[in-house]
Amino acid sequence: MRKSGFYLALALSLVTAAPVVAQMDVEDQINTRQSAFTFAAWNMGKIKSQAIDGDVAYNEQQMLAAANAIASVANSGLGALFGPGTAMDKNDDTRLKPEFFDKPEKAREVAIGFAQAATKLQEVAANGGDKAALAAQFSEVGKSCKACHDAFRAE
Amino acid sequence: MRKSGFYLALALSLVTAAPVVAQMDVEDQINTRQSAFTFAAWNMGKIKSQAIDGDVAYNEQQMLAAANAIASVANSGLGALFGPGTAMDKNDDTRLKPEFFDKPEKAREVAIGFAQAATKLQEVAANGGDKAALAAQFSEVGKSCKACHDAFRAE
Repeated sequence: MRKSGFYLALALSLVTAAPVVAQMDVEDQINTRQSAFTFAAWNMGKIKSQAIDGDVAYNEQQMLAAANAIASVANSGLGALFGPGTAMDKNDDTRLKPEFFDKPEKAREVAIGFAQAATKLQEVAANGGDKAALAAQFSEVGKSCKACHDAFRAE
Repeated sequence: MRKSGFYLALALSLVTAAPVVAQMDVEDQINTRQSAFTFAAWNMGKIKSQAIDGDVAYNEQQMLAAANAIASVANSGLGALFGPGTAMDKNDDTRLKPEFFDKPEKAREVAIGFAQAATKLQEVAANGGDKAALAAQFSEVGKSCKACHDAFRAE
């Protein structure tokens, strides 16, 4: 619980105000957040292959590394990469809907949902690596991804 | 030491043979590894800003999150993204020199160097977050990045 509390506090602090790095330009923000999600998706794919589909042999160490990667993305302060001017109304390289900026409470909600689900995935992977438990929490992380996509990502 | 030993074993296992996910095509491998490095570089930038340059206020939680992110990249099994046909002699989207495939021992050496340096960065950040210690280990991680760039990345 202590660890979860820490990550939640961290997620909150990062969704809100505190700067983490000198200001990045719009293109860098978009490219970096897409990179973060690509890296997370690759690691989600490992868990899917090994814990859900079973087309790759289950390997606890690899599952822990994958969960660590996903959690590190979710807790990395992604909010800093969603600055003004980074939606699709002003840039062709993103599918972020402009209403993202009209709904800060919803944005905070989906960011926290991702951070909580991914942090729990990491805990499940670290606590013995039970395949069924990991598969179940993988599904929860997937739902947290979808919650943001449904709200803020164009088709 | 136990944790370092674990990560070293993990890095070794991932540099060598074990598949982590169903085979990805060449473009996906290149895009995903570039994403991983972009995500790591963003997090390196946070540590540089806060622990070296001082242009952003030092925040221990953000430094730990950044170190976790860098370590998760270094320990994610990047070797799986450097498959046959992913060097610059066969693809315009990468600067990976073809000699990467002629020097597996060197490739392993730089991969392990990155994993060890990044895992130690994570340990330093987790053990109290001393700014000077973090700055010193940041420099070691930077050297491990450079070792690979010098060996295998074209100008």
